Amino acid sequence: MNDVTPIALSDDRILRVHAGHAAAPIVVEVTRGSMVESVHRVIAAVTDASGAPVVSWGDIDRLVYGRSAIKPIQALPVLESGAADAFDLGEDEVTLCCASHSGEAMHVDRVNAWLGRLGLSAEDLECGPQIPGHEPSAHAMLRAGETPTRAHNNCSGKHSGMLTTAVHLGEPTKGYIRDEHPVQKRLRATMQEMSGCDLSGVPTGYDGCGIPVYGVPLKGMATAMAQFADPSRLSPARAAAARRIVAACAKHPLLIAGTGRFNSAILSETGETCLLKSGAEGVFAGAVPGKGYGICLKADDGNGRAASTAMGAILRHLGVIDDAMAQRLTDKLVQPVHNWEGRLVGHIRPAPDLAF
Amino acid sequence: MNDVTPIALSDDRILRVHAGHAAAPIVVEVTRGSMVESVHRVIAAVTDASGAPVVSWGDIDRLVYGRSAIKPIQALPVLESGAADAFDLGEDEVTLCCASHSGEAMHVDRVNAWLGRLGLSAEDLECGPQIPGHEPSAHAMLRAGETPTRAHNNCSGKHSGMLTTAVHLGEPTKGYIRDEHPVQKRLRATMQEMSGCDLSGVPTGYDGCGIPVYGVPLKGMATAMAQFADPSRLSPARAAAARRIVAACAKHPLLIAGTGRFNSAILSETGETCLLKSGAEGVFAGAVPGKGYGICLKADDGNGRAASTAMGAILRHLGVIDDAMAQRLTDKLVQPVHNWEGRLVGHIRPAPDLAF
Repeated sequence: MNDVTPIALSDDRILRVHAGHAAAPIVVEVTRGSMVESVHRVIAAVTDASGAPVVSWGDIDRLVYGRSAIKPIQALPVLESGAADAFDLGEDEVTLCCASHSGEAMHVDRVNAWLGRLGLSAEDLECGPQIPGHEPSAHAMLRAGETPTRAHNNCSGKHSGMLTTAVHLGEPTKGYIRDEHPVQKRLRATMQEMSGCDLSGVPTGYDGCGIPVYGVPLKGMATAMAQFADPSRLSPARAAAARRIVAACAKHPLLIAGTGRFNSAILSETGETCLLKSGAEGVFAGAVPGKGYGICLKADDGNGRAASTAMGAILRHLGVIDDAMAQRLTDKLVQPVHNWEGRLVGHIRPAPDLAF
Repeated sequence: MNDVTPIALSDDRILRVHAGHAAAPIVVEVTRGSMVESVHRVIAAVTDASGAPVVSWGDIDRLVYGRSAIKPIQALPVLESGAADAFDLGEDEVTLCCASHSGEAMHVDRVNAWLGRLGLSAEDLECGPQIPGHEPSAHAMLRAGETPTRAHNNCSGKHSGMLTTAVHLGEPTKGYIRDEHPVQKRLRATMQEMSGCDLSGVPTGYDGCGIPVYGVPLKGMATAMAQFADPSRLSPARAAAARRIVAACAKHPLLIAGTGRFNSAILSETGETCLLKSGAEGVFAGAVPGKGYGICLKADDGNGRAASTAMGAILRHLGVIDDAMAQRLTDKLVQPVHNWEGRLVGHIRPAPDLAF
């Protein structure tokens, strides 16, 4: 258990990344009846593995915290260190390393069994407890008089991956979320290498699950994701790890998010033609192996409905989601808004500013 | 029970109220560590009862659905029709007419008792069921194996008010949420009179609780709210109703929202110097009786954290929240962001663009 230290800073030390730039384009609209009621502004970058932009919206040099959208990048050390093989991680567990899961039994049971193989338990996770995002699972837990554990935290798979690496490399398991722990230093180095960005001196903070976050230019994050799509610039060990991650997530789309979730629904359709990961505060990242592209986007206001709708439109544009898939994904690409009686009252949809 | 009819429209009939206008100012910042991670753009209008602007941010002519922020306006017919007195509504019930409550026992028990006095029950509400927003109440309900009723819907007080008026005036109770029902026609006429805006031909839709919504210019909504602050332009019956609503909400701040909620916390401090009401999709309205001002704001992206933070800053600017109150309301005016382990990782706070 970490001590609870406030780390909010005084005003003059906080970087205002939006200040002085043109407003990001309106990329998502929320309609109600005969009017657009709300809009979301989103910046988005699609690049190749060299970092060359393919298409973009808004200021793609803006620093963004990758949050959970960069979990596939954070999963690389688990594989390339040999930890995954040493502990015989299956593709399901590799997927959980990349997951922001809904705390369903399929997620939590796997995490607990995996931690058991490490000689650890959910008590060794330092991510805090979280009630399952999957409503039926949350309700069942409450009805049974149970309380959520740290294994229920949506990041428990990522944290189990970090613990796996630490155990394998003989590093302390306690304090693995701290800036100075080798696990976190390795994650930062990996992001720097994958993105090609110098991360010394960038703004930093702490994620919902307690690990450090750091500001990376949006286009750098897209470039990092593009290495999954085109691993030709990576070391053999890292390239193999990247390919295993793409294959694993394609095989276990429900494990990366959960029942009914956008991320899982898209991956269920696209298979290995796409790697896709959502993050908090409206970040979404992806890779398109068939084309060698990486994608990263961020909703200015941090809203997930904006991020998923924008990502759906970009994947549609890139041809990752074809017409037949789009037909089956209708409710994900243009999300219906219902009222409490179940009546359809509006839609969340791509806006005309998201023109290609 | 109404039929479930989709009412979403084809694209060419949907008005894009944000198109072609300058971007709204950045009014709220969400910090994490040493960086602003997300921002919210908000339009806001403060006017007097004549409609003259006092201070504003962004395009205050933009059409906005008032959503639940205009419940105090929708409560007027309950009082001025004589329905409230005929059924002996207390100040608690008048407050519930204006409430978006959290479904706590203090809210739900009062609604059920009130409906019983009308010879009705929660089954006569047409707002749909909703699990309580108050987490301990929701969890207790689930632990007890119960399911939410329509009385738990956050709008159940407003709907009970509508039913009270219908019963008192001998109108049908069934279908009271429909456009053509006298209850809804009365609400629309009341909004037109209070705002001074011609509402013929404005965009329309349906609210989360099933009643019609219509687009009103933001400054018109502020003007409507200003009538509560300065009822001198109203008929004696409406002026009396407006005064009773201000007094009732000041006396029962916990009933208008709920335990721990921004709206309730502010009203608990300000008493009759302020009427304040939140709405879905980032709308917030208020009135300042001591100054004769009305306030209405809307977060472009529909986020409630933006709306409450902006409203807090405006009330601070107007002197409604004084230094001593601000001290006690610290966590409401600048909301802390905690991670799952309870560590403070950032803040939601007014941005420099919200300069006065």
